[in-house]
Amino acid sequence: MALVGIFSQIRIVLVNPSDPGNIGATARAMKTMGLKHLYLVAPQVFPHPKASVRASNALDIVAEAEVVDNLEEALQDCHLVFGTSTRERELNWISLTARAAAKKIGEAREQKIAILFGRERCGLSNQELQRCHFQITIPTNPDYSSLNLASAVQIVCYELRLAFLRKTEIRVPKQLALAKVEQLEYFYSHLNTVLTHIEFLQPFRGQQIMDRLRRLFSRAELDETEVKILRGILSAIQKKIPKKNVNENSYD
Amino acid sequence: MALVGIFSQIRIVLVNPSDPGNIGATARAMKTMGLKHLYLVAPQVFPHPKASVRASNALDIVAEAEVVDNLEEALQDCHLVFGTSTRERELNWISLTARAAAKKIGEAREQKIAILFGRERCGLSNQELQRCHFQITIPTNPDYSSLNLASAVQIVCYELRLAFLRKTEIRVPKQLALAKVEQLEYFYSHLNTVLTHIEFLQPFRGQQIMDRLRRLFSRAELDETEVKILRGILSAIQKKIPKKNVNENSYD
Repeated sequence: MALVGIFSQIRIVLVNPSDPGNIGATARAMKTMGLKHLYLVAPQVFPHPKASVRASNALDIVAEAEVVDNLEEALQDCHLVFGTSTRERELNWISLTARAAAKKIGEAREQKIAILFGRERCGLSNQELQRCHFQITIPTNPDYSSLNLASAVQIVCYELRLAFLRKTEIRVPKQLALAKVEQLEYFYSHLNTVLTHIEFLQPFRGQQIMDRLRRLFSRAELDETEVKILRGILSAIQKKIPKKNVNENSYD
Repeated sequence: MALVGIFSQIRIVLVNPSDPGNIGATARAMKTMGLKHLYLVAPQVFPHPKASVRASNALDIVAEAEVVDNLEEALQDCHLVFGTSTRERELNWISLTARAAAKKIGEAREQKIAILFGRERCGLSNQELQRCHFQITIPTNPDYSSLNLASAVQIVCYELRLAFLRKTEIRVPKQLALAKVEQLEYFYSHLNTVLTHIEFLQPFRGQQIMDRLRRLFSRAELDETEVKILRGILSAIQKKIPKKNVNENSYD
């Protein structure tokens, strides 16, 4: 597949950026490396002349950017989600360097991929990182790790370009259709409902367990059939639980 | 030699930069990767508040930048000079990618090294490139190769950092005790029992589904706590199923 084809499956998602200059600089960073699809989740100031100035001749990327209200919209139809972070989190998430992540993305064939970049001041929230399959870290100076937002995008896109250029004939085992983000979220919601019904989770207190289960299933990179099997199990449990215990939360 | 020691032998030289914002952004890019020594050859506007704003907390690099009148002064005492360029020149110069150059610089022990970055609009002149031992090129989109000056510095400094660090590529979160084979087998047996109880699996005919679930959980490489959580869920389901449906197979 040509580079253009592969890159058209990758979207760069800026979550809640505050400086429009960084949006323009991000567009330029993307275009120099051949990427096209920019998503802006609730940008604080956009459009703005500063975005256009810093975009230089990448105005097309800025003009075609998808502006959405929330992260869910930005992740629609995606199969694999990566979240960038400079901090070491306590989440025990699988963390890849930008280079290792680019290699992994280079091996993904038909999948749609989102790479999230957080706010200038505080990055991605833990809740947003929970939506990611993998965390990407960019090695930085431990005494000063404050990469500019567009610089972080530049490095990740640069690694993507190199990974794709380099990759000649990597043998990847036949890839089953990975579940899309929405399918996974329905599954997690269904799981939460059932675990609450069977009183394994206490209402409003099961977040830690749910996060843990998310990590477990994220690591496994579920395909569509597996999600169907798991949801089939959940439905079978629901059928067996006496009606009085089943509350009517919707989950699909 | 410590990173600081090695990096103190490298100077980043901006030749005749026009935008003071780029000088500040360059300082920030350098500091995030651990570099310190910035040389400015005949900057058009410097000092300037824009440089300070874009430098963020890398003001020390800006404040200590050496401002010189010509390239000769910037190259004083250096052993190896690299010149960056996005264009293919007709000079027949030895040209290294940023990665290869970083590797080469990483092997240089006691030498003082200068890396030159040219003007925003037109880069380094041929005469300036003649002063370099090697040309560095950063792979870019052939349809739009216009990297921002500070972005080019960012990529080169990032490659330098990685070349010096040669870190392991994947950080596996705090190694939790992986479940032992026996624990996994108890779990699968328990799972089989419950899935049969809830009539998700038909007796003696669920092998294919069980194999599939095994593959899924194998990929996730379950740790001991996760196995306990999963078995806790299975036990909670069993408690909720009316007694008459529970058969007496053992499953421990």
